[in-house]
Amino acid sequence: MELAITQPADFHVHLRQGTLSELVTPHVRKGGFSTAYVMPNLKPPITTTDQALAYKAALEKIEPNVQFLMTLYLSPELTPNEIRKAKHAGIAGVKSYPRGVTTNSDGGIESYEAYYPVFEAMQEADMVLNLHGEVPSDPSHNIHVLNAEPSFLPHLHKIHSTFPRLRIVLEHATTRAAVEAVKACGDTVACTITVHHLELIVDDWAGQSWNFCKPVAKYPDDRQALRDIVKEGHPRFFLGSDSAPHPPDTKSISTPYCGCAAGIYTSPILLPLTAHILESFGALDRLEGFVSTFGREFYKIPATGSKVLLKRATDGASFSIPEEGYELKGESVVPFWAGKQINWKLSE
Amino acid sequence: MELAITQPADFHVHLRQGTLSELVTPHVRKGGFSTAYVMPNLKPPITTTDQALAYKAALEKIEPNVQFLMTLYLSPELTPNEIRKAKHAGIAGVKSYPRGVTTNSDGGIESYEAYYPVFEAMQEADMVLNLHGEVPSDPSHNIHVLNAEPSFLPHLHKIHSTFPRLRIVLEHATTRAAVEAVKACGDTVACTITVHHLELIVDDWAGQSWNFCKPVAKYPDDRQALRDIVKEGHPRFFLGSDSAPHPPDTKSISTPYCGCAAGIYTSPILLPLTAHILESFGALDRLEGFVSTFGREFYKIPATGSKVLLKRATDGASFSIPEEGYELKGESVVPFWAGKQINWKLSE
Repeated sequence: MELAITQPADFHVHLRQGTLSELVTPHVRKGGFSTAYVMPNLKPPITTTDQALAYKAALEKIEPNVQFLMTLYLSPELTPNEIRKAKHAGIAGVKSYPRGVTTNSDGGIESYEAYYPVFEAMQEADMVLNLHGEVPSDPSHNIHVLNAEPSFLPHLHKIHSTFPRLRIVLEHATTRAAVEAVKACGDTVACTITVHHLELIVDDWAGQSWNFCKPVAKYPDDRQALRDIVKEGHPRFFLGSDSAPHPPDTKSISTPYCGCAAGIYTSPILLPLTAHILESFGALDRLEGFVSTFGREFYKIPATGSKVLLKRATDGASFSIPEEGYELKGESVVPFWAGKQINWKLSE
Repeated sequence: MELAITQPADFHVHLRQGTLSELVTPHVRKGGFSTAYVMPNLKPPITTTDQALAYKAALEKIEPNVQFLMTLYLSPELTPNEIRKAKHAGIAGVKSYPRGVTTNSDGGIESYEAYYPVFEAMQEADMVLNLHGEVPSDPSHNIHVLNAEPSFLPHLHKIHSTFPRLRIVLEHATTRAAVEAVKACGDTVACTITVHHLELIVDDWAGQSWNFCKPVAKYPDDRQALRDIVKEGHPRFFLGSDSAPHPPDTKSISTPYCGCAAGIYTSPILLPLTAHILESFGALDRLEGFVSTFGREFYKIPATGSKVLLKRATDGASFSIPEEGYELKGESVVPFWAGKQINWKLSE
C-alpha cells in the first residue's frame, strides 16, 4: 500500500541554533516535510524582523529545500510598526508564550490587553497570532500542569471576540475543552495538534521523563477528543509537531535534585509516525488533510511541488526506529518512538 | 527549641529483603521511629503466617530495637483459618494491592466479594485491613493515575458498610475525595498519609522521576485537603511513610524506552522531615498525634519506651541532607530531600 500526500507542512517546529540546528534542520525533510513554521524561542528570542530574516537565512543555508515560515516572539518591545515591517518582509506570525505574557505585568495573563495595539496591527496586516495556551502554574489557585490549558481558554475567547478578523492558532491543544473552544470560534481560529498528544496520556509521562513535554499529555478522554476531531477531518485542526530537540542528558534524570527538559522530538520520523498513529485509531483517510491541506488553507500557503510517497509495511512486517538517534559534531538527539516498530516509511 | 515526641510509629513502610533490607531496616531508627508496620510485597509476597514470622525474625536480627508489626498479602490463597492462625501469632493486618484484587477475577476490583469470608474472619479476629486504594488505569473508561484513587472509594464504602466492625486503613491517601470519604466513615476506618504527599503536587513529578510514586501526588487542592486534615488533628489520620527504597539506577531515566520505579524513600530522615513539613504549613503542634499517638490508638499499640527528642535549628540556620545517600555492600539508596536543607534533627 502506498499513499501520495500533497507536500506536508509542519505548522509548529523548533529548529534551534548552532550545531543543534545543523543537526535537526535537515530532519524536517527527512521526516517528509517541505514547509516548516519555525518557533522564535531562541536565546535571545527572535523579536525583530531583522533577526527573523537572519535566522531564516541560516536555516536555508543548512537546508535549502525547505520553505521556512518565520515568526516573532511576542514581547513588550514589539510595536505596530515592527508588525508592518515584518509583514512586508514575509514574516508569517507572532508567537505568544505564557512567560512572555507575564513579563512586566502584575496581574499575569490579563496583560494581553497591553498587546492590543500589536494585535490590531496584526489583524490589519493579516498576520497570524500563535498562542501557547497555558497559564502559569499557581498552587494557591489550584492551577497546575493539568488544568493550565483549560484555564487559558477564556483568554482565547476574549482575544478572538476583540479581534474577530485576526487569525489565531491555539498551539498544541491537549484537552477536550480546547478542542471544543476552538470549534466554537469563528473561521479565523485554528488549532494545531502534535502527533505525540494523539498517542500519550498522563500515565505515559508518569515516571518517564522522555515523554514529558509542555503542555503535558492529559487524560484518556482528552486524547479521545483530539483523535475524534482528527478523525472528523475538521479543517481548522491540523498538525503542528512541536518537535523539540533536547540533548539526551537533559531528557534523562539521574538525581532527585534536578528535573528534565520539557519536549518531545519527532521531526525525523514525522510523516511515517503520523500515518502510523492516525491509522491506529482509524483516521488514516484524514492524513493528507491533517498534515498538509488544512494547515496550508488556513495559512494561505499553497503547495508548489510534487507529492510525497508513503509506503506501508506488508505481510505483518514493520520498520524499526533505531534506539540510538542522530549525532553531529558532539550534539545528539533521540526521537520519540526510538526502539519501537512503525508500519510506515517514506518511499525512496 | 526542642520537642519530646512519644515513640513515633510508622504505619506503612517497605523494608525489602537481602542486602537492601540490611541497608534500609536500620534507617527506621535512624529516622526516629521505633515501631514499623511492615508491608508484605516481597518476592514472593508474604502470604502465610510462617513467612511473616520468618520475615519478622530476619528484620529483628538486623535491627533488634524496633517493634515490627507484620502483615499478610491478600491473595486467593488466604483462608479464614490462616487469618485465625495469623492473629494468634501476632500478625497485625492484611494488605490489599490492586494487582492482587484483579488476580483471578474477570470483573476486576468487584472481586473483593471473593474475599468476604476472609474479611469476616478478620473482623472477628480484630485484624486490620490495609487498602492500597487505587483501581488499575483503564483508558477505555478514562481511568488514569490521577483519578485512580477517587475511583476506588466506592469499594472502601462497600467493604466498610458490609463489615462495620472491621478496622480498615486507607493507605497513603492523596486526594480531597479520599479524606472526605474516610471522615464520613465510622471510627473503624482510618487513613495513612505520607510526608511526601504533604509536600508534592503533580507539577513536582512532571519531568522528575525521583518524585514519582504510586499513588502519584495530585493537585494543589488535594494537597491542601491533606494538610488541612493534619492541621485539624483528626485522630483517624496519621503517618504511614510508604517509604520505599529503590536503587538509584531504577529511579533514574536514561532512555525513552524504559520508565522508572515508583516510590519515594524517606525512612532515614522521617521524623525531622515530618516536623519540617508540618511546620511549613503551621501544623507543628499536631506532630505528636500525627506520627505517634493517633496511629497507636487506632492500632492498639501503646508506647512502651522513652520519648524521642527533636531539635530545631536556631538563628536562621538549618541542617543539610547529603546528596549522596547511603550505601552497603553495593546496594545504595538516596532519600527524598537529598541535597536540601531541613530545620530539624534528632537530638543526640
